[in-house]
This record gives sequence, structure tokens and C-alpha cells, in this order.
Amino acid sequence: MALSRLVISSRALHLSHAPIARTVPASFTMSIRENLVLSRAASRVLATLSGPQRDAVLESIADALDANVSTILAHNAQDMARARESGMGEAMLDRLRLDPARVHVMAESVRDVASLADPLGELREMGTRPNGLRICKRRVPLGVLAVVYEARPNVTVECAALAIKSGNALVLRGGREALESNRALAKIVRDALAQAKAPMDAVLFIDDTSRERVAELLGATGLVDLCIPRGGASLMAMVDEHARVPVIRHGQGICHVFVDASAPREMAAAILVNAKTQRPGVCNAAETWLVHQAVLQDSGDAFAFIARALCDAGVTLHCDARAHAALTASKIACVPAEPEDWDREFLSLDLAVRVVDSLDEALAHIAKHGSEHTAAIVTGDPDAGERFLREVTASCVLLNASTRFNDGGQLGLGAEIGISTSRMHAWGPMGLRELTAEKFVVYGDGHTRP
Amino acid sequence: MALSRLVISSRALHLSHAPIARTVPASFTMSIRENLVLSRAASRVLATLSGPQRDAVLESIADALDANVSTILAHNAQDMARARESGMGEAMLDRLRLDPARVHVMAESVRDVASLADPLGELREMGTRPNGLRICKRRVPLGVLAVVYEARPNVTVECAALAIKSGNALVLRGGREALESNRALAKIVRDALAQAKAPMDAVLFIDDTSRERVAELLGATGLVDLCIPRGGASLMAMVDEHARVPVIRHGQGICHVFVDASAPREMAAAILVNAKTQRPGVCNAAETWLVHQAVLQDSGDAFAFIARALCDAGVTLHCDARAHAALTASKIACVPAEPEDWDREFLSLDLAVRVVDSLDEALAHIAKHGSEHTAAIVTGDPDAGERFLREVTASCVLLNASTRFNDGGQLGLGAEIGISTSRMHAWGPMGLRELTAEKFVVYGDGHTRP
Repeated sequence: MALSRLVISSRALHLSHAPIARTVPASFTMSIRENLVLSRAASRVLATLSGPQRDAVLESIADALDANVSTILAHNAQDMARARESGMGEAMLDRLRLDPARVHVMAESVRDVASLADPLGELREMGTRPNGLRICKRRVPLGVLAVVYEARPNVTVECAALAIKSGNALVLRGGREALESNRALAKIVRDALAQAKAPMDAVLFIDDTSRERVAELLGATGLVDLCIPRGGASLMAMVDEHARVPVIRHGQGICHVFVDASAPREMAAAILVNAKTQRPGVCNAAETWLVHQAVLQDSGDAFAFIARALCDAGVTLHCDARAHAALTASKIACVPAEPEDWDREFLSLDLAVRVVDSLDEALAHIAKHGSEHTAAIVTGDPDAGERFLREVTASCVLLNASTRFNDGGQLGLGAEIGISTSRMHAWGPMGLRELTAEKFVVYGDGHTRP
Repeated sequence: MALSRLVISSRALHLSHAPIARTVPASFTMSIRENLVLSRAASRVLATLSGPQRDAVLESIADALDANVSTILAHNAQDMARARESGMGEAMLDRLRLDPARVHVMAESVRDVASLADPLGELREMGTRPNGLRICKRRVPLGVLAVVYEARPNVTVECAALAIKSGNALVLRGGREALESNRALAKIVRDALAQAKAPMDAVLFIDDTSRERVAELLGATGLVDLCIPRGGASLMAMVDEHARVPVIRHGQGICHVFVDASAPREMAAAILVNAKTQRPGVCNAAETWLVHQAVLQDSGDAFAFIARALCDAGVTLHCDARAHAALTASKIACVPAEPEDWDREFLSLDLAVRVVDSLDEALAHIAKHGSEHTAAIVTGDPDAGERFLREVTASCVLLNASTRFNDGGQLGLGAEIGISTSRMHAWGPMGLRELTAEKFVVYGDGHTRP
């Protein structure tokens, strides 16, 4: 049950293109709880750093990423080779792949986080009570965050930047597929922490990808203040079973686009193509197209027009019986939907298509099959739009816009640690502010309660 | 495993001074999950009611409370008699006791909640992005709340009022001690819901006080959206073991008052007497007095002055060795502290007293023994005050004011469902806003993401 810490000593290990040793000397192995005790201690130190000190750490990380592009890519190439051998699909390979531009984007994203306003320390005046008590609130870090995530290695860096900026220690447990990339990135982050005279253990990377480690993190009451699991249904089932610490789920995105009777067909086609294909491997990509039956009966053949746009963009349409019949009649390629397709996060150029008779039927379908992540309506009818926006339970509901906009940067929140599908504390993109808590600070002058 | 619902049919049962039947016909028994399915359905209806409709329900509840004072008191008298027989202490009896004034305060508190601004529906503009997307947020109910609580019957009514006002269904599971009072109050609430044409099942009362029922509520994933356990360490241990649904703990208040070297002795005495004795049975009452050693050495005998004020107010001082020696020398009655006293929520006229050599030692004691609930410093030194306010981790930290001010009404938030000791989502008094979630609402005009 002993775990190796990524880097246990403060001596800088030389990063090379060779794989970083997976094993560390036996004396350096420790249990996950021992690791978390180090995180806790680091979190206390981090919370005392000033905003400029935390920003300096981030600048140091960004510079280290830019200075180590070839090393990072060499480690990523190992992950990519293994993933290709294992038959990983193209959309998932895209999530895993790094290139010089993407590494630079990572570095820039760290600099972006540094440039954001400091979420901590801010003393917010809540007013003075009639008895003269002055009430304020002050933002403080949550403490130790644990993030469990899947294939995308940029998550390693983005989470570290957000955690450090918000004064929280971070424990990372990434997916098996990105192990080499994550290991290299975490090492760069930790070395940069040490160089900036910040506690290296403020970011710990758990390089044991067994599920038992996830269960241990989820059960570490008193040591983990918040666990953020990012992933699909099987990870969420683990959370259901093992979570004892506070959890904010970043669950799968079974995102819907409803094309209403009155939808302009060009707009519907553009939004669907964007929602499905602009980056199919991410959680805010569309997975199901609900189409009003009136669109099938449109004299201008709107349904075929939209379907053709999707096919031209390389999308495979998984159709219910009515959609299948209509497209087959229009000689547009499609496949029959399986019952489980309505609950699938394809993360690929596949889209489930269902014909509904009404807005009510669309709302009922989303209530049953959606994951409370993202839903969009394309309509020319403002009343239908308002009803959809009001009644759909999702972290983000959109009128005449692509589901891909459910993103911290796109919504104007700055960087995000992910998209929460939990309603509690944070719902939707979770940024710096959501990684903090507020305490009441009260100034009296001998006040007692009558 | 079958549970009875408090009132299963919509026919109004006549409330009398006789105990309400504990058993209902066998055909009316149902499992806790079946009860929760009813709550879920009721929550959907409740969420569609307008603000004025929800307020009308609250007015109806308040009127019914005022109209049924003698019934409520008769049921409460049964609980009080049983509690006295079982040897319940005076502070706990005070939590349980109702009288005409307290029932009227309950009714008024429901009217107060009705008069608060509607937390729902509010569309908050977040700005328009450079690409023209208009970003808003809308508050929505959480869904089904479950509250597990202890002796105070007013909690039944306050929670119901806050849940209904915020559009949430509520499942109540009160303590054994207040069973008859709670049962009568819940019946009044449910009848008022029905009279106001709102779904009666929006408030369910579980009158099986076995711990298994709590475990079932905590494990009801998909049916309970938020569980709020209010209670002491043994309830929180159950939460640690069984919670699968989102939980916001309203844990015990091990609240500290630190009397610094420079504290004016009159102010220190007044704040300590208020914090300990104004209502000793509640969670924001002080449980430990930390006193700077300089106060013991004060030529004006400040320590004895403050201790005498506490003794005069009926407080038993549980002292560490130094405090015990000093008070004994001053001929002030006290008892030696037991090691477990530093972690005790007395909820009575008992106070643990420890001498510390410095602010650092006080901070370390609170970090180790406090429950992240409330801590106050009495000091004449602004720097010491600021450091205390900054470094203590608690939902409310106070300078020169009683711990009793950590209360929704006192802090200006309006009514509260309790005081959260969880940092996530709500920390400290948890009002209407904290019983809601916000979703992003986005208005586009065919927007796609480049």
C-alpha cells in the first residue's frame, strides 16, 4: 500500500528525455495518508504567502514549461505511442496529444491565472448592524484539494495553477493514459515551486493509477478538504461508493441541442456542427440532437439540410426510427440508434438523433437523459426559448448558441478547474473563487447579545 | 423497514390534545425511498409556484401556529415530562421547552421568512461578452432537502419555512426527545400546505427516530439533493460513515473566547458571561475560555474579576492547573479540567478555562480543539485582533464581541436553517440563498465557438 511521492527530495532532478524513474528508493515510499499530511502542512504555508508571492510561483512554472517543451513532448510521445497501440480512438488521442503550441498554451494559461485578481484576503463589507457591529467576510483557501482526472495532461498544469493562485495545496491523480506526460509536468511544477521558495508539497502527484488510490483519496476525511472527480459514469459510481470527503463532481456531459420547429435551418446547422465537431473529446460537446417533428415536415427540407451539414463534417448520426426513415429517404447516411445511445457520452464524431413531437417531449427527454451539464435550444420563438432556459436543469442552458460555450473562459470567469455537475457550492465552470470559502469577520466594541 | 408517513391522506385530521396516533393503517406504510419519491414529485410542483404563492403558504402556516397554541403546548408537555423523567439537564430542557410566547415567536419567524426577498427566479446579468453572447445566472431550488436535527422543536417550523420559501421540498427527521412536539408542528405545516393548495408532501416528517432512518436518508442518492445534519460528534460520525448524498454539516460548536493580555477586564467579563450564559444550550455559546497569562499577573486582579463575574452568573469553571491555582488562591470556586473538556460541547453552564502564554498558543489551541464554528478575541491591541481574525479557521471570528452573534439574524442575513461548519457552499449561518443553486443562462444569436 506504500506510494511513491513524485519527488521526495528538494534536490533538482535533471529532466531528460528518458522516462522518469517509476520507482524511487524504498525509503522514500509512503502511504497516501502520509502524503496527505505533507499536503496539509504545505497548504498552511501556502495560505500565508502573499498574492504577489503566489503569482511569482506561477511565473516560475510558466517559464519552466516554456523551457522544457522538448522534454514534455518526449514524455507525451511515450503516452501517445502506448495509446495508439492500445487502439485509442482519434478523439481521445486528441485529448492526450501535446505539441509545441499546446505546451505554450499551457504556459500562457498559467500566466493568465497569475494575472487574475487574487481571490484571497479580500475583506468584503457586509454593512454595520443597528447595534454598531461591523460585519465583513474574508475569502480563505479551502485547504487541500484532490483532483482525479482522465486523459488530458493540460489538466495537470491548469489545476496546479488554480490551486496555487487560490492558496490551496493540490493532490493530483491523473489517468493511466497520460501517466508519462503528467509525471513530467508535475515534476516541472514541483521544481518551480521549490525554486520560488514555496513548499514543493503544495502539489503532489500520485503516480499509482490503481483505483484503490482513488478510493483512499475519497475516504481521507480530515486530510482532503475537497475532492474533484472529473470523469465518466464509472468514476462517479466509485465516488458514490467511497466518498467520505466533500466532493464536487465534474461528471460527464451528456449535452443536448434541441432544434425547435421555428429554428432557422442555417443557424441550427452551424450550432450543431460546432457543438459536435469543434472539439468532440470534451465534456461540453453535444451528444444528442433532439429535433422537432415539424423540422422533418418542413417544405424546404430543413432536417436533411442540417443532417447533411453534420455528415459533411464527418459526423455519424445514430438515429431513432423516424429520423432514420427520413434521412434514408433523403439518401443521407445514418445508423440506427441503440437504446443506450441516449445515455452515452460519445466523445467522438457520433451524435444520437431523436425526433420529438413537442418542446414538452424535448424537456422530458433531457430531464431523463441529460447529466445536468449543458443544453441548448435553437429556436425563432422567444417563448419556447424562455421556457427551455427556465425549465431545463443544467449548469448552463443556452439560447441559439453552441454548447461549447459552457466554459470558464467563454463565460467570462477566467480559468476553470473544470465544469461542476454538482449543484452545491459551484455548478458549471469552477474558477478561483469557487476554490475558496468565506468566513464572517465581525468587529465589535464589547458587544453582547441582549 | 416500512415507515409511516405522518399524514398520508389529504383529509384533514383533527388535532387534539391526545397524542397523534403513532401508527397509521398498514396500507399506509411505505419505505423511506417511497417517501422520498413523493418529496421529489412535490419539489417539482413547489418549484413552479410563484413567490407570492409560496408566501401565501407561509402565511397559512403562521396563522395555523397561532391558532393551535394550546395543542402544540399539550404535545410539548408530553415531551417535557418524558425528558424530565429521563433526567435531562436544565440547558437541554430549555432547548425543548415551548410556551405561548415561543410558539408566537415561531409564527412570527415564519412571517419574517415570508417577508424576505424571493431568492428564486432572479436573473442576474453577468455581462455581454465581446462576441455578443449575453451571460446571466438564474437561482433555482436545490430540490429535496433532508434535515436531521436534535431537541429543539422550533427547528421543525423554521426549516419548513425556509425550504418552502426557497422552493425546496423538505424531509425532517427530528430527535426522539421532541417527537410529540415535532409531530404536532409538522402536521400543522402539512395541513397548511394543503389548505394553501400546495403539495402537502413538500414537507415530510419521519417519525421513526431510529438511527437506521438517518443512514437511509444519508444514502438516498438521486432522491435527496442535500442533507443537513445538525448535531454533535456522534451524528457527524454517522455522516462520515453513511453519507452518499451531498452534505452540509451543522456540527457542534466548540466555541472559544480568547482574553488577550490587553483586554479591558469589564469588557472581557461582559462578553464571556454573555457568550456562556445568554443561551447555554445553543451551538454558538462559548465552551472554552483561553486567557493570556498576563491577565493572571495583572495587578488589578483582572482574572479573578472575570472569573467572579462568571461564577456569579452560575457558571462552573473547569480549570487547567494554572487557572485552578490562581482562582483557588483568590477563593473562587472552580473544578479541575479533565483532558476531554477541551473537546467538549457542554451546552450547559460549564466552561473550560485554560491559561496560554501567548496569542500563538491560543491560536494553536483553537486550531487543535475548535470545531471551525465560532471564535472571539477580547483585546485592546488591534494587531493581535487582526492576526486572530485572519488566522483562526472558523465560520465566524469576532473582535470584542460575543460568540452569540454568529447567527443569521444577528449578522443581517435574515432567517437561517442553521450554522454550517462545512466550508463548502455555505459556511456559518445558512439562509435562503444558500438553499439554492445558480445556473448559467446564455443568450446567443447563432453563436458558435471559433
